Amino acid sequence: MKLVFLGTASAFPTPTRGVSCTALQHDDGSVWLFDCGEGSQIQLQKSTLKIGKISKIFITHLHGDHMFGLPGLLCTLANGQDPKMLEAKIIDIYGPHGLRKFIATTLSLSRSPLAYRIRVFEIIPRSDQYPENWNDWEVDHSLEERFKLPQEQEYNKIEYCSKIKGWKLMDQNNLVVHAAALEHRIPSFGFHIHEGETPGQLNVAKLQEIGIKPGPLFGKLKQRKTVEFEGKTLKPEDFVGPSIPGREVVILGDTCNSDELLNFTKCPDMFVHEATMENSLQEKCIEYGHSTPKMAAEIAIKCGAKFLVLFHLSPRYKPIDDNSEDGSAMTILKEAQEYISSKNSNMKVDVAHDFKEVVIIRG
Amino acid sequence: MKLVFLGTASAFPTPTRGVSCTALQHDDGSVWLFDCGEGSQIQLQKSTLKIGKISKIFITHLHGDHMFGLPGLLCTLANGQDPKMLEAKIIDIYGPHGLRKFIATTLSLSRSPLAYRIRVFEIIPRSDQYPENWNDWEVDHSLEERFKLPQEQEYNKIEYCSKIKGWKLMDQNNLVVHAAALEHRIPSFGFHIHEGETPGQLNVAKLQEIGIKPGPLFGKLKQRKTVEFEGKTLKPEDFVGPSIPGREVVILGDTCNSDELLNFTKCPDMFVHEATMENSLQEKCIEYGHSTPKMAAEIAIKCGAKFLVLFHLSPRYKPIDDNSEDGSAMTILKEAQEYISSKNSNMKVDVAHDFKEVVIIRG
Repeated sequence: MKLVFLGTASAFPTPTRGVSCTALQHDDGSVWLFDCGEGSQIQLQKSTLKIGKISKIFITHLHGDHMFGLPGLLCTLANGQDPKMLEAKIIDIYGPHGLRKFIATTLSLSRSPLAYRIRVFEIIPRSDQYPENWNDWEVDHSLEERFKLPQEQEYNKIEYCSKIKGWKLMDQNNLVVHAAALEHRIPSFGFHIHEGETPGQLNVAKLQEIGIKPGPLFGKLKQRKTVEFEGKTLKPEDFVGPSIPGREVVILGDTCNSDELLNFTKCPDMFVHEATMENSLQEKCIEYGHSTPKMAAEIAIKCGAKFLVLFHLSPRYKPIDDNSEDGSAMTILKEAQEYISSKNSNMKVDVAHDFKEVVIIRG
Repeated sequence: MKLVFLGTASAFPTPTRGVSCTALQHDDGSVWLFDCGEGSQIQLQKSTLKIGKISKIFITHLHGDHMFGLPGLLCTLANGQDPKMLEAKIIDIYGPHGLRKFIATTLSLSRSPLAYRIRVFEIIPRSDQYPENWNDWEVDHSLEERFKLPQEQEYNKIEYCSKIKGWKLMDQNNLVVHAAALEHRIPSFGFHIHEGETPGQLNVAKLQEIGIKPGPLFGKLKQRKTVEFEGKTLKPEDFVGPSIPGREVVILGDTCNSDELLNFTKCPDMFVHEATMENSLQEKCIEYGHSTPKMAAEIAIKCGAKFLVLFHLSPRYKPIDDNSEDGSAMTILKEAQEYISSKNSNMKVDVAHDFKEVVIIRG
């Protein structure tokens, strides 16, 4: 698994930073996108990733810098692909209520037929996530019944589950994804991706020593089942190594309080949190629903994260290069490092720039 | 006046070409944008233009590569501007019916308040502009009554006028803009911008010779009024040079037939026409509602254009550079040049690349 940062600026894109878009590339090559700000399809072309490998798109919240690139990406996502393969292609899109109306309105007004199908999963926010002034804008976030996209395969609403204190988005291919509510100016979500355990290694040499050849018994032992062989009882623990724990990744949307992630995280291998402005601007930062490096590091330590990556920086912070000084992204990184040191934590930390790639290491 | 090409690719943006966006910079520095594909706000930042100088936006048609950058641009158009000045700022947006719903839906779902006001002018297509399969998509292009943007100052519908065979969009500050219907897969428009005459130069030396000093009489003569001075009758034609004819610019949307422009053009100084694919692909080109270099040159000559600029090239045609060969945009340019020569026309022709600037010369 690796992360590829495709857009690391907040608010608006500049020639040196795109707006929010983060790719999670799985071991099988498939790609999940987290947010899709304007220009993400161009950033993808410039990256090492293949657009055709995208299988799922998660939108953290409906601010423009996180979703205005989605209609364009959906229109070009199938470019150059085999039409036969496209017949079976389905892209899953997860995001807050209102996302389906956004997709349907933009694609139908622009009359953009898709060469594949989509499934939309709308996360229905809890009532306390809406700001007081929510009804100042007379917007219906639901889609009119008849306003259905021809390419829409399925539509699902996902409600909050008070038992797990979050939203369960999916559980397939040994991967479970939950959403947690984040405090922001509009409903915003953090995504928690948890890979299940991988079975331990089979001691093939030991098995062959007692005369068992590769075959069905190998599989049963690997599945931790006790088997009989020539009158002997073979216990899996004698032939299979310890299970390999799955990786745990957290990718958050905009927030000034991400404590609800604590309901899901154990010791995340990777924790991707926004840090829009430096510590001295904390008051302004919180007013706009954002975090400082200190705030991000604080919750990451609480969650027991092993590696914190900061992104979603105000465009005022230029990417770090050889000449970086105070005022660049170096300021954000240093402030996080100082806080982490002050807490005697050994959590690693870095600040993302566009096209940065970070491998997610197990354990 | 000058044109700045900000996006010259058709269909989808690439790292070397943005999608449709063309700026017309007036002599007073104000900027009109024609189309606003995804990423236009980044292209504007990279150009010599100032985003804050944009006063009007014209959208030729509702395909994504011509308007998906509009919501993002509207959100950042006022960045860094004096809040006092913004109170008086109004941006006029012209485009086909459905554009208002696109703007209102994207801005309200993303909860993007604008720091200035907008006026939307929707061009209502003639019934024959809709394709046969128009109703396959059950889309209501009108906006629900209550779905009004707080920043919307005014909304106007502009109907076809059979007398002028087009749509009259505006007439202010000595500039008249009309829209003409273009043949395409969805309603598409070409814009005809006509500057009025500028009064001729006053012969100041001659006036001072007979004892008239700069003042009200100067102004009256310049306005071609006869004046009395110390018992003498002064005729304007004796003191004012010939009026300077205004410039005429045509900027078109996607089309495979732009003959209706002939209803407006006299001898346009600048004619900006799409040329999506080379001549040998004419059949495919027309199937998708597009033009070849030959088709573009043909109508430009018919209109009496002095300068034809081709844009909206398929991304397969790389921009021209020192190593350009066949297969690049050079192919498009050569085919247009050959056709123009074969017709013994002396019309100038060029092919646009991103950030190309072309000054529009009078006469």
